[in-house]
Amino acid sequence: MQVNRRDLDFLLYELLDVESLCERPLYAEHSRESFDAMLDAAARLAMEKFANHNARADAHEPHIVDGKVVLIPEVKQAIDAYIDQGFLSATFAPEYGGVQLPFLVSQAVAWFFHAANACTVGYPFLTMAASNLLAAHASEAQKDRYMRPMIEGRFFGTMCLSEPQAGSSLSDIRTTATPMGDGRYRLKGTKMWISGGEHELGENIVHLVLAKIPGGPPGTKGISLFIVPRYRLDDAGRPAESNNVVLAGLNHKMGYRGTVNTLLNFGENGDCYGELIGEAHKGLSFMFHMMNEARIAVGFNAAVQGCSAYEYSLQYARERPQGRSFSSRDATQPQLKIVEHPDVKRMLLTQKAYAEGAVALCLYGAKLVDERAASDDADQQQALLLELEILTPIIKAWSSHYCLEANYWAIQILGGYGYTRDYPVEQIYRDNRLNPIHEGTNGIQSFDLLGRKVTMHGGAAFKLLMRRLGKTAETAAQVDALAEHAQALKAATRIVTDTTSALVAAAAQDTDRFLCNSWIYLEMLGHTVIAWIWLEQALAAHQRLSENAPDRDFYQAKINACRFFFRWELPKIERQAALLSGLDDTLLTVDAQAL
Amino acid sequence: MQVNRRDLDFLLYELLDVESLCERPLYAEHSRESFDAMLDAAARLAMEKFANHNARADAHEPHIVDGKVVLIPEVKQAIDAYIDQGFLSATFAPEYGGVQLPFLVSQAVAWFFHAANACTVGYPFLTMAASNLLAAHASEAQKDRYMRPMIEGRFFGTMCLSEPQAGSSLSDIRTTATPMGDGRYRLKGTKMWISGGEHELGENIVHLVLAKIPGGPPGTKGISLFIVPRYRLDDAGRPAESNNVVLAGLNHKMGYRGTVNTLLNFGENGDCYGELIGEAHKGLSFMFHMMNEARIAVGFNAAVQGCSAYEYSLQYARERPQGRSFSSRDATQPQLKIVEHPDVKRMLLTQKAYAEGAVALCLYGAKLVDERAASDDADQQQALLLELEILTPIIKAWSSHYCLEANYWAIQILGGYGYTRDYPVEQIYRDNRLNPIHEGTNGIQSFDLLGRKVTMHGGAAFKLLMRRLGKTAETAAQVDALAEHAQALKAATRIVTDTTSALVAAAAQDTDRFLCNSWIYLEMLGHTVIAWIWLEQALAAHQRLSENAPDRDFYQAKINACRFFFRWELPKIERQAALLSGLDDTLLTVDAQAL
Repeated sequence: MQVNRRDLDFLLYELLDVESLCERPLYAEHSRESFDAMLDAAARLAMEKFANHNARADAHEPHIVDGKVVLIPEVKQAIDAYIDQGFLSATFAPEYGGVQLPFLVSQAVAWFFHAANACTVGYPFLTMAASNLLAAHASEAQKDRYMRPMIEGRFFGTMCLSEPQAGSSLSDIRTTATPMGDGRYRLKGTKMWISGGEHELGENIVHLVLAKIPGGPPGTKGISLFIVPRYRLDDAGRPAESNNVVLAGLNHKMGYRGTVNTLLNFGENGDCYGELIGEAHKGLSFMFHMMNEARIAVGFNAAVQGCSAYEYSLQYARERPQGRSFSSRDATQPQLKIVEHPDVKRMLLTQKAYAEGAVALCLYGAKLVDERAASDDADQQQALLLELEILTPIIKAWSSHYCLEANYWAIQILGGYGYTRDYPVEQIYRDNRLNPIHEGTNGIQSFDLLGRKVTMHGGAAFKLLMRRLGKTAETAAQVDALAEHAQALKAATRIVTDTTSALVAAAAQDTDRFLCNSWIYLEMLGHTVIAWIWLEQALAAHQRLSENAPDRDFYQAKINACRFFFRWELPKIERQAALLSGLDDTLLTVDAQAL
Repeated sequence: MQVNRRDLDFLLYELLDVESLCERPLYAEHSRESFDAMLDAAARLAMEKFANHNARADAHEPHIVDGKVVLIPEVKQAIDAYIDQGFLSATFAPEYGGVQLPFLVSQAVAWFFHAANACTVGYPFLTMAASNLLAAHASEAQKDRYMRPMIEGRFFGTMCLSEPQAGSSLSDIRTTATPMGDGRYRLKGTKMWISGGEHELGENIVHLVLAKIPGGPPGTKGISLFIVPRYRLDDAGRPAESNNVVLAGLNHKMGYRGTVNTLLNFGENGDCYGELIGEAHKGLSFMFHMMNEARIAVGFNAAVQGCSAYEYSLQYARERPQGRSFSSRDATQPQLKIVEHPDVKRMLLTQKAYAEGAVALCLYGAKLVDERAASDDADQQQALLLELEILTPIIKAWSSHYCLEANYWAIQILGGYGYTRDYPVEQIYRDNRLNPIHEGTNGIQSFDLLGRKVTMHGGAAFKLLMRRLGKTAETAAQVDALAEHAQALKAATRIVTDTTSALVAAAAQDTDRFLCNSWIYLEMLGHTVIAWIWLEQALAAHQRLSENAPDRDFYQAKINACRFFFRWELPKIERQAALLSGLDDTLLTVDAQAL
């Protein structure tokens, strides 16, 4: 397990000032001490009970014996300890047994678990996400019967959205929920890609299922959300008879193997009952309500995998002797450690720039969630939501795309060793390949960004984001060592703003032409935002260096990575902007027959 | 198995005019008919005996039972048929039992086997490569005793270069070969990453081993090459007692699992004898002699994996309904096939542009090998060698880097399905991850390109290549439909030439600064060369369209992919050129402590 605690502390306390949250009534019980205690405990538990079986769970993936899903025993041991130590309940309100941990700190805590074993911690994470949804939208009776046992760790949760024929296009789901007249609904359908869909880790599994009530509106406007337990509850809330949610198969994946992924049949062999959550036909909006946090969590997982593999490859590069410098190739002289080779530095800096940039942006996004929750000012809440909304698709898609590329370079540094299962970067690369796909593919994220977030409220979110970037550029312009980057960021915001204007002008006439190059748009805006968060990091590091703080190498490394990103990466946006501003129509005009 | 035979025929007969080789005495026995017969036979055999166990060999990787390496039985069945049908011997001269098949056609044949099962065909490919080396450098007696049984398929071959502590830096190998005074040498040392290092497929395994004769010069100048058989041969050339080459372990890889990869100890428990090939201390130059072909083969394998996954994802995209267009989202209307979505077209065109561009360049390189072999004009031979030398690192590194990225997009098109082992793109992605690493890492290729090939003979190879590109640009400028690309290629050659001049000028003063950004240089020159081969393909396609040839969609698709590459990819070189021309020193000046 590789977690750079120094970086985590820097991000929380020096860059994002998480302590400022403790000044708000919502988080008033907290302090740096309580946060640190939680992080220390997470570090210990992750190392002791999660890291120990990460590779083993990958090699021994879940399988079915006598109709039951069998996991290696370490999984339950780890999860039981996780629940016992209060990690599962931490972010919930005290009335539900939690300690109202800020989302930002919960993500910092998650860093350790993602790094130790992203698959095992997937089970409680899914349960926490499902509980969150119930906390926001379920009735009090539903909360008591389903949510409380989940937060206590007795019941587990899943999200059942996709179907075999409907992945990205939820408007085409076919699962039906027919009202029985007594408040219950009879579910019928098949759900695909359900993580944690079947296992024996707890007393019950609470599936949150998207389905259509017959006669409702077509498309997404006719989707409702249901609680569908694996075992029906008796009047005392105890799991009783089967609810006919049947395991139809397991998916065998490239990575992320420790998290069981299932195909589930609802109501195929007998009645399967569900309870409606909130109003009918509002199901997708309830899901979307939780989506920012879910997508930040996916982006953050990807970023953590980027950081982990970076640390492994940095350690390897510092220990592995191989070759000599270009200017001094005398074979009788000792070899260099490969970290000294410029091309290895390139592969390290690329990883650092991508992964630590992504991690910082994800945590920045997480803090927006907390600030919004803690605010009592409606205008401020709205501004925070706007910023969160426009950043979320970037956080999810940019992080998962570029941090997988970072993993590619980690393997390359280790060479043949990196390609073997004896070194952890191999599994990280396979695990991390999932993140560009799930929780909305990266293509979907790019439509969401350009098609919704950039244009919503007359471009308010976009303008707010550009002002944020501009402000940082102004501050950095005052610092000689960073003035070059300040200038570059300013120029980048101009390019991005002009490009966006050109696209929005086109949108009025032709939606297809406006949106056809959305992935490139996400790359362009993503690189600009990552440049900004790097400049923020460099400013904080520069400040600490000027104060003669210890850990000078750490701060200098932040400034180095910032410089690398500005020189090697940010200039890429110019070509992207040219393609976008020119409304390149290659993708529209190429005939699908001529491919 | 997915092989686009139409593309293969286009490349061989319409782009590269392989039939012109048949006019040379060396290949005079051949004709389009003999080539086609070979290709047809390869297609059948690959489908019947290789594709059948590609996934199974991945799931059941080689393991050790009672000290012996066990492969699934289909591997031997496939290889026996491959030998029986003459594929192993085909490229060798008739005197050795071959039919003098041009290297270009042998690669075209290999397309089917790479696509069907790159791992199983690895065993005969390694044997062919080792035999080639013996054909070029071994004594007649050695050829009779070792090479002939290899070409007959009775003995298998390996290349033993790397050691656990010496992968990229061969000058630091430690294996020794001590002369015994009777012409034999006693080998002692450990070799790592030896593919096909131990198995029971044939009567013997002939290891070609790099080792140092004690007292020789330091570094690469003291490396010699030895024949070290698994079983010593008796006077009749029959395998007899063990030669003490001991299997010390198997490497467990991310992919390419069907090809056993070993750690071998030479002479640890008893004498291990070897025979010197050619002169002492010339071992590395013998290896380098075969390196162009070996590296073309690796680049070609990567390119074939790119093409295979492209075809799978194209087929999926044409069959999978999902979602609607941006401008018409009515959920009551039927869904589109995803091939109609612009973002899916982007992912398809990216793959096609990378993979079919790489395949074309690899086969172009293969033809240079044949033209050189068939030429009797020393000047022409030298010019062909120059072109081959400068293209080889691009063929190996660009193809393996970008065709893996192509595989990434193939998975993305299949979404969750692409991430499962039920669809072939998953294995392709894991298998193909090897290619940027072996046969000289891509970083090493970039040093070779900029540090040796670009500068050798006063830049003769570089100038020759630029003239080649310029000539194509001139031809294309005459074709209205391609004039835009002709202009862009001309501009690109100017950019590349200016950048190269700036770098070479710096080289005189500071080798480190000259070479520190070599990977970016390879990317820049690679993209330019791929743009050129695309323009060549578009010219050929345009010509056929103007002749009203059938398969109009096929030719139009070539022109589409060319357009995509020129608009979306080639402009990337501008930023790369700026970084290079500015002699960016980030990688030199960043302190390895501050990472």
